[in-house]
Amino acid sequence: MNDPAAFVEEAVRRLREQVPTRAIVAASGGIDSTVAALLAHRALGDRAKAVFVDTGLLRAGEVELVGGFFAASHLPYQLVNASDRFFQTLDGVSDPEEKRRRIGTTFVRVFEAEADKFQCDRLVQGTIAPDWIESGGALRDTIKTHHNVGGIPKDMRLTLVEPLRDLYKDEVRAVARYLAVPESERQPFPGPGLAVRVNGPISRERVERLRVANAIVEEEVERAVSANEMHRPWQYFAVLLPVRTVGVTGDNRVHGEAVSVRIVESIDAMTATAMAVPRTVLARIAERITRALAGQVVRVLYDITDKPPATIEWE
Amino acid sequence: MNDPAAFVEEAVRRLREQVPTRAIVAASGGIDSTVAALLAHRALGDRAKAVFVDTGLLRAGEVELVGGFFAASHLPYQLVNASDRFFQTLDGVSDPEEKRRRIGTTFVRVFEAEADKFQCDRLVQGTIAPDWIESGGALRDTIKTHHNVGGIPKDMRLTLVEPLRDLYKDEVRAVARYLAVPESERQPFPGPGLAVRVNGPISRERVERLRVANAIVEEEVERAVSANEMHRPWQYFAVLLPVRTVGVTGDNRVHGEAVSVRIVESIDAMTATAMAVPRTVLARIAERITRALAGQVVRVLYDITDKPPATIEWE
Repeated sequence: MNDPAAFVEEAVRRLREQVPTRAIVAASGGIDSTVAALLAHRALGDRAKAVFVDTGLLRAGEVELVGGFFAASHLPYQLVNASDRFFQTLDGVSDPEEKRRRIGTTFVRVFEAEADKFQCDRLVQGTIAPDWIESGGALRDTIKTHHNVGGIPKDMRLTLVEPLRDLYKDEVRAVARYLAVPESERQPFPGPGLAVRVNGPISRERVERLRVANAIVEEEVERAVSANEMHRPWQYFAVLLPVRTVGVTGDNRVHGEAVSVRIVESIDAMTATAMAVPRTVLARIAERITRALAGQVVRVLYDITDKPPATIEWE
Repeated sequence: MNDPAAFVEEAVRRLREQVPTRAIVAASGGIDSTVAALLAHRALGDRAKAVFVDTGLLRAGEVELVGGFFAASHLPYQLVNASDRFFQTLDGVSDPEEKRRRIGTTFVRVFEAEADKFQCDRLVQGTIAPDWIESGGALRDTIKTHHNVGGIPKDMRLTLVEPLRDLYKDEVRAVARYLAVPESERQPFPGPGLAVRVNGPISRERVERLRVANAIVEEEVERAVSANEMHRPWQYFAVLLPVRTVGVTGDNRVHGEAVSVRIVESIDAMTATAMAVPRTVLARIAERITRALAGQVVRVLYDITDKPPATIEWE
């Protein structure tokens, strides 16, 4: 793909071919699915509708951010709150593959229901080449990532349309610039959301706990970057660990969980280095998390493992 | 206690009173129990025997170190290998209080058996004032620590003799200097041993895994201290976490556990600061642990929480 204009023209032509009536677009707010949504809109106009699913597994502020993004892009867009459904199916599930499988299935059921309402059987999604070439790689956008881990149920009633299937990331970025997609400063977020950063059993309470910790990590890193205390990392996030450990509040012993903080530098996510974050920044993160989650999280750990031997994500 | 000579004289007199025949001494290699053993030897000669229990929960090299220590002190001393017994009773136990209770009971049963063989019913131990004044404090020596947590079974057949019961730590140190106890450079070690640093279920395999990781932390910290890369910390050790996380070896994904590294500065253990250890030292620790335990431990975390809100130990 050398010429974004030619690519867009061809993609629009093919989309019109592949979608005889109407289609919904799986939208996560990420660059891939946003480009896919814009192409679908160009090809189909109001016959395409972007659907953004609130799984209950999103970061703090994510729904507002993505909503604003779509509003700014003037795209037909629908927010579906499916958090009850997701928590019901995930409650108590610990196994990472099982989490992904159930999330994938639930996504499909939600999209099927939305497709029924929109009277269509086509689902456009922003799968790009690395998503299907290297399984188990960086999992980003919504439903597409579940191909890799067998998360799409065999009985899915929707036909997939994947206009970006042959593109690599830098090519998607070129197309995004051509389509004037507003660039997001926010770091990528895995498709299965906070679920794969809640190590151990999922519950609404543990996800909420992680959401609070993760927002603090994002805020403190972004503040430190703005203040020139450190470079912008490749990725930075919190992980909740299913451990029971002791802390003290005043004269009392309290038991709580631990949070691991992951901040890495990388060029391409294939290898990564645990960043040498200034001590003061780590201290602020630990202090704020244990204060905001007093009695729930008593210990904060900084992940000092490079990739390899560890991966960037925990599961 | 102002005069070590007078204290020793009085302690010897009282020990002869309290031990009409023979006694065994619970010896951990720590300063308190060693002073107690020396006092008992002075009072009772060969009628006192120090018993050191290999619980299977000791650090790498601990048995050799303590054995050498007693040999150098010319004290009658017996090593009891009770690791099978300890692992049998602890297998699969996760709850910290339950771990301590079972360890305490097993210690008592082992000491009872040794007392029977030595034809006595007195157990001398190095309890000092803080051990019974502040329960849940720094747990160090062998059996005495289990008083605090209800680990001594009610039906114990031995009568406790505690010659250091009224002393504070600095007073014990003064008596130790007076008795020419060789000073150990090695940091204190909790009575329940590695069991309380194996977070989650105990197994022989997980304890061995932690033993390897802990030895690496000790070696690298001591090397860095010798090389003037950092000050000597108050305490430094590893903790094994019952999590399942992903790593990569070559092109393969592997699943393993995580190790948390705790290195703190403190004056009195009542408060402590997570030490600002040089990045290079942490990187060496992470690299060595994941290499030595490849496929078992894929992630190393550095505990960045001060006390409060976290404690020094994990459980």
